[in-house]
Amino acid sequence: MTILNNHIQQLLTRYLAVRQTTVDICKPLQNEDFVVQPVAEVSPPKWHLAHTTWFFEEFILCKFQKNYVRFNPQYSKLFNSYYKSVGIHTAQPNRGNLSRPTVNEIDEYRANIDAQIIKLISDHTLCDEAAFLLETGIHHEQQHQELLFMDIKYILSCNELETCYSTAELSHAHTPQSSWKTFGEGLYAIGHDGENFSYDNEQPRHKNYQYAFSVCESVVTNGEFLAFLQDNAYYKAQYWLSDGWNWVNQYQIKCPLYWSYVDGKWYEYTLYGLLPLDLNNPLVHISYFEADAFANWKNLRLPTESELEIYLSSTQNMRSDPKLNTISSPKIYHPNAANALSPQVWCWTRSQYSPYPQYKAFDGALNEYNGKFMCNQFVLRGGCIVTPDNHYRHSYRNFYQAQQRWMFSGIRLAKDII
Amino acid sequence: MTILNNHIQQLLTRYLAVRQTTVDICKPLQNEDFVVQPVAEVSPPKWHLAHTTWFFEEFILCKFQKNYVRFNPQYSKLFNSYYKSVGIHTAQPNRGNLSRPTVNEIDEYRANIDAQIIKLISDHTLCDEAAFLLETGIHHEQQHQELLFMDIKYILSCNELETCYSTAELSHAHTPQSSWKTFGEGLYAIGHDGENFSYDNEQPRHKNYQYAFSVCESVVTNGEFLAFLQDNAYYKAQYWLSDGWNWVNQYQIKCPLYWSYVDGKWYEYTLYGLLPLDLNNPLVHISYFEADAFANWKNLRLPTESELEIYLSSTQNMRSDPKLNTISSPKIYHPNAANALSPQVWCWTRSQYSPYPQYKAFDGALNEYNGKFMCNQFVLRGGCIVTPDNHYRHSYRNFYQAQQRWMFSGIRLAKDII
Amino acid sequence: MTILNNHIQQLLTRYLAVRQTTVDICKPLQNEDFVVQPVAEVSPPKWHLAHTTWFFEEFILCKFQKNYVRFNPQYSKLFNSYYKSVGIHTAQPNRGNLSRPTVNEIDEYRANIDAQIIKLISDHTLCDEAAFLLETGIHHEQQHQELLFMDIKYILSCNELETCYSTAELSHAHTPQSSWKTFGEGLYAIGHDGENFSYDNEQPRHKNYQYAFSVCESVVTNGEFLAFLQDNAYYKAQYWLSDGWNWVNQYQIKCPLYWSYVDGKWYEYTLYGLLPLDLNNPLVHISYFEADAFANWKNLRLPTESELEIYLSSTQNMRSDPKLNTISSPKIYHPNAANALSPQVWCWTRSQYSPYPQYKAFDGALNEYNGKFMCNQFVLRGGCIVTPDNHYRHSYRNFYQAQQRWMFSGIRLAKDII
Amino acid sequence: MTILNNHIQQLLTRYLAVRQTTVDICKPLQNEDFVVQPVAEVSPPKWHLAHTTWFFEEFILCKFQKNYVRFNPQYSKLFNSYYKSVGIHTAQPNRGNLSRPTVNEIDEYRANIDAQIIKLISDHTLCDEAAFLLETGIHHEQQHQELLFMDIKYILSCNELETCYSTAELSHAHTPQSSWKTFGEGLYAIGHDGENFSYDNEQPRHKNYQYAFSVCESVVTNGEFLAFLQDNAYYKAQYWLSDGWNWVNQYQIKCPLYWSYVDGKWYEYTLYGLLPLDLNNPLVHISYFEADAFANWKNLRLPTESELEIYLSSTQNMRSDPKLNTISSPKIYHPNAANALSPQVWCWTRSQYSPYPQYKAFDGALNEYNGKFMCNQFVLRGGCIVTPDNHYRHSYRNFYQAQQRWMFSGIRLAKDII
Repeated sequence: MTILNNHIQQLLTRYLAVRQTTVDICKPLQNEDFVVQPVAEVSPPKWHLAHTTWFFEEFILCKFQKNYVRFNPQYSKLFNSYYKSVGIHTAQPNRGNLSRPTVNEIDEYRANIDAQIIKLISDHTLCDEAAFLLETGIHHEQQHQELLFMDIKYILSCNELETCYSTAELSHAHTPQSSWKTFGEGLYAIGHDGENFSYDNEQPRHKNYQYAFSVCESVVTNGEFLAFLQDNAYYKAQYWLSDGWNWVNQYQIKCPLYWSYVDGKWYEYTLYGLLPLDLNNPLVHISYFEADAFANWKNLRLPTESELEIYLSSTQNMRSDPKLNTISSPKIYHPNAANALSPQVWCWTRSQYSPYPQYKAFDGALNEYNGKFMCNQFVLRGGCIVTPDNHYRHSYRNFYQAQQRWMFSGIRLAKDII
Repeated sequence: MTILNNHIQQLLTRYLAVRQTTVDICKPLQNEDFVVQPVAEVSPPKWHLAHTTWFFEEFILCKFQKNYVRFNPQYSKLFNSYYKSVGIHTAQPNRGNLSRPTVNEIDEYRANIDAQIIKLISDHTLCDEAAFLLETGIHHEQQHQELLFMDIKYILSCNELETCYSTAELSHAHTPQSSWKTFGEGLYAIGHDGENFSYDNEQPRHKNYQYAFSVCESVVTNGEFLAFLQDNAYYKAQYWLSDGWNWVNQYQIKCPLYWSYVDGKWYEYTLYGLLPLDLNNPLVHISYFEADAFANWKNLRLPTESELEIYLSSTQNMRSDPKLNTISSPKIYHPNAANALSPQVWCWTRSQYSPYPQYKAFDGALNEYNGKFMCNQFVLRGGCIVTPDNHYRHSYRNFYQAQQRWMFSGIRLAKDII
Repeated sequence: MTILNNHIQQLLTRYLAVRQTTVDICKPLQNEDFVVQPVAEVSPPKWHLAHTTWFFEEFILCKFQKNYVRFNPQYSKLFNSYYKSVGIHTAQPNRGNLSRPTVNEIDEYRANIDAQIIKLISDHTLCDEAAFLLETGIHHEQQHQELLFMDIKYILSCNELETCYSTAELSHAHTPQSSWKTFGEGLYAIGHDGENFSYDNEQPRHKNYQYAFSVCESVVTNGEFLAFLQDNAYYKAQYWLSDGWNWVNQYQIKCPLYWSYVDGKWYEYTLYGLLPLDLNNPLVHISYFEADAFANWKNLRLPTESELEIYLSSTQNMRSDPKLNTISSPKIYHPNAANALSPQVWCWTRSQYSPYPQYKAFDGALNEYNGKFMCNQFVLRGGCIVTPDNHYRHSYRNFYQAQQRWMFSGIRLAKDII
Repeated sequence: MTILNNHIQQLLTRYLAVRQTTVDICKPLQNEDFVVQPVAEVSPPKWHLAHTTWFFEEFILCKFQKNYVRFNPQYSKLFNSYYKSVGIHTAQPNRGNLSRPTVNEIDEYRANIDAQIIKLISDHTLCDEAAFLLETGIHHEQQHQELLFMDIKYILSCNELETCYSTAELSHAHTPQSSWKTFGEGLYAIGHDGENFSYDNEQPRHKNYQYAFSVCESVVTNGEFLAFLQDNAYYKAQYWLSDGWNWVNQYQIKCPLYWSYVDGKWYEYTLYGLLPLDLNNPLVHISYFEADAFANWKNLRLPTESELEIYLSSTQNMRSDPKLNTISSPKIYHPNAANALSPQVWCWTRSQYSPYPQYKAFDGALNEYNGKFMCNQFVLRGGCIVTPDNHYRHSYRNFYQAQQRWMFSGIRLAKDII
């Protein structure tokens, strides 16, 4: 074996680390926890283990390894999520109806594909396209690591037996300080900048004319949202989008997803089990409808995704750029890619998920990765506590439907400066 | 330990045997197979293991064992199926959303309850009511053994990976002989007779005026039903009940449940995997709608449940009672409880499930066992290949909804003699 | 025009009278009332006007009038209800989506078909089959007269504006006397007897072995049912069939169909508008589920359809037949067709709608009239206040699904005599 | 009566004209056509007649006429569409279940409110707020005139009898010329400009940074879309949004809303009845999903709403502003409000319906007019053949859900200039 070039060596190291992390995330689970799908949007953990593996098999081994023979030809259909161009796939709501392959069989699948990927890399036959797909596959698996946390939390919460992911003890949150940061009117550059990896939907970097705005430096806490709830705002149409009001009434929504009210006290289901609601903790697991209603109740608004990207990018180097606030000198602002944040919750933006100007989807197999979902989704920004550390970027565009709540979603408020 | 009386000793022996059989039925399963619920009517095997155990805990230990402390108080809700009088219960369609308790935990539950039931019996403190409930619990568990076979077959069939319960080889069926047996007009006694156990719905034994009829001595085969299908009868309204026609069209029903047509050949999914359709085998897994349509297509009809009980009861001692066919001397016919049949499929009757004259539901806890289901169900008679041997009686009334197919249901035809 | 034979003359007279009555029933309606279909089972009145006319066109004129040209070929599809043998038809739930043909156009259709039927009859060319179909068509239209009352009541009740069919004043009901009538064990003859018209499902008259029973001579009143409601019986599972309990909970059923509770008082919507609930009036517009639950709450039961036919047939000539109660001499009882009853409500029976022994469906076009509905329906007996006078017979088998309530359905209780 | 000021006099004239136009639009209808609601989104015409009247009663008479007594207090609930702040309202899908009030009663309602509004205006007591609400009410009624055309077309199309709105003869369309118009990169002003009326969602006028783009000068024709269909593009996932692909498959969508294929020829249902598809006519009645798929199939894209506003505004005065195309001098472009267009179809944009920067909803009663619908809708621009002449503006933002098709929606293609 010859020496690999730096980039490939780095990719291999990251590949191995990310693959191991996925397995580690599942360690606290019982075998039965890997199988169930309590609602269509929550996939069985064993499906995630297999699907992330299928991604490497389908897009790299099948294409770049000569005479490759699939581990199991049926896996092609079973573990394809939504890539129509590579064949039919099992319908998403059926994932939890399939007891086979077993978790052990999927572990074997992972081990087998890992061995072949390592061999492919070690043989240093990786062309640029394969390297790009490998890097994308690593990022893809990191996305699924966050999904695993979301789905595991949901699955464990459905058990009528008390079940928790971790038995560690949590310390209490401190009261956040609530100050506002203001940004001036002008042209800003938005979107991914630089050589590092990004998804197609973060590109191209482009100019955006922005009016002056302020963003709150702390996210909304459980305590603040409890005040909204205690004002009976779930029963007051004036705060809600029309679709939101229908949703609240149809599903009898009365509190955030994991909250419950028992014997006069509020509790929150967490990965650490059912805990008394910590009023200083960031509010999490709310829908766009609830986020928007809360902002209306506060006479404020949700930020746009540009505003949140500008804000997030500023958290390091705003101080060195005092001119940014000057309305009279609009200029292109370059976000700094370095991320010292410890993000807690993905924050809903009022921006519906749309292509950037001059957007081009990835070529080839990954053409379906992002563009076909640009309809009836809202963008969330900022990352969350279960987002893998080196996965997040300020230009990262997460997106969910307005009623979805099982992701770690919260609120950061904004307002116009007029 | 003193000597138990015969009846109780016998009960204990049967209890142990039946409990072991349930476990044996599940032996070929993988852990993951115990968890899934692909449709609401198919319960996860681990639920059956727990529910049959709960039956003994709820109705015997809780009532007859002094100072009894439940194994786990939450199991009372989790494993109650539909007995409203003993508290709330988990909704049936949610059973497959619960990963906990695990199969291992349920095994512990079974072992624990078994130990306590054995102790209760061995202490010879069993009053008559407790003995009756114990006997009912044994029969109840046998019912669930048949349900386990039904549910396991359905669960394994849903896997897109080829999966089978047994790998044994099957011999081919012989061509059945098709003759008719005729019964004369008159009064017949219907319902359970004798001292042995029966459910409340088989009682009381009562007189029924019966017109002359014939029953086919063989059940309908796959080959006969294939002729119906090949006559495009699934597309001809005139053979179908109105509800049946709607069902066929809404769900695009084109063949029996486990049949499939691949590359010009018909296959049938069985507990032995996917096999070429054996034309001599009894037709199985069809709905009432299909059974009724087939009978219409044949210009024949399904039997009533009285007719089938009379026929089944006659299979041993008809020869010794030649007067039965004489229309001029209607008389009460006493079915013989002895059962030399090797029944293959439950046969649909045209009788909707209703109470017998002067029917009384069981008193007390088991009041809900049967009566509350007497609505929109059709009776099936005769037992099937997965009915436990000493569980079946000729008076046994099985019942399912007209569209259901996952039980081992088939057709025995009848006609009027006018 | 020559002289018609008596039977044909009589048919013509009845035809004209029945056709006129249908029109008269609709007189109080506004044009808009003819169009709407608030739920699938309630058809627009204009559809009834056209469908009853189509029946004569399709089954008589098209078949027996030489060179007949349809009034409008599209009506064949539009106004066929469910006769698959004569071609495709508009789906029932779409009837209220069709604004055309207008009421005026349908009036023209009626007039045109009437003229041709009269001509056909007057030309005394009516063969026996045509005469039978004509008679059936008359009975069919009478069935739709009752349906018109049911549907009109439902349609007017849906208006948020107060709307009533008649503005006449109602006198109050007297307290009914509640006595029981007992019938002895034995063989009874059930089913239509005699030469007069009946539907196929009332035939053949046959022997039925009946155990001793009593029937209450008065139907259940609003006051009696209010006591059930006030005992919170809608919230007590033990009284309900399993399907009934699901229905009550899914649709949040809390009272009979047309009842409402306003400012501490109960009201009932009637054809005379919204009136305070008259406690002495017969209870009406309840489902089988409610009827069965009420009987359970009373520790009584609903009668079988045989029992109700025996009871109804006895209301005239029971007194002259004192031996009927003697268990020791079971005998065939012949109901008297003469009907002096003024029936108020159709009474639910516990009998699911099934074919009589040796039942044969009508031949030919009307083969679909009854038999294909023998599934998941319960029989009601006795006629009601809106049943046309000369339409009802004691052998008449009405049938509805267990959850339906918009017909004039009520309760007559029964019990075993043991 | 004293002389009214000009503005008020003008308002009165427009009020009378618009009210009359609404009545004129309904002239070809039969009474029955006013009543039906074949799908939830299509309201009965009589509801539109009443709701537009209610708008004036609720927001003007109730507020500004002293001691005003409502025409009928129940109309407040019946004809409120979605204004939660003024009380409960009838659920939208129930509109077609209500036969009352009749069309005649609604005509009386219209006449009565008109008389009172005329009196209120003539008494020249109209404050600014009332004048604004009156003007808004006139625009609101014009919106409903377009909705009336949409709903009438849908209602008539549902009739299985051939039914048309007009029997006039149509001339054939000419082949459109297909050229592209290009706009340069730079800052453009977007949104309503000037003193004339506009809705809150068109405001405020704001700067938007725009990259260079071209817009096709003709809209897509039936012929162009037929080529897409004939390429089997409805069956090729690669052209469709993920939600669009699900929609196509769930509802078995195979062509635009009013197209049908009979005996080898394509037809289009129009207000003039069913006509052979005119290949030169603009494509109309398609969903966003179909518009987006068509653009993808063409390797082009839909315009953003800014692009379409820039294009539409340019159709008059582009020639006098040659610098607009110069990328090196981005400048604010002021659309000319004058509209010489004869727009044919509303064109889908890829812009999801969101608030403009610094958007403020109308104060008071009309706060709910627009903002609460800014979720899961796409913007359409340009007006259509049934848009009232003096109602349309280039800044006008129409919006519908991605699957909706019953509005007069079509396609104008765009592309990037890079």
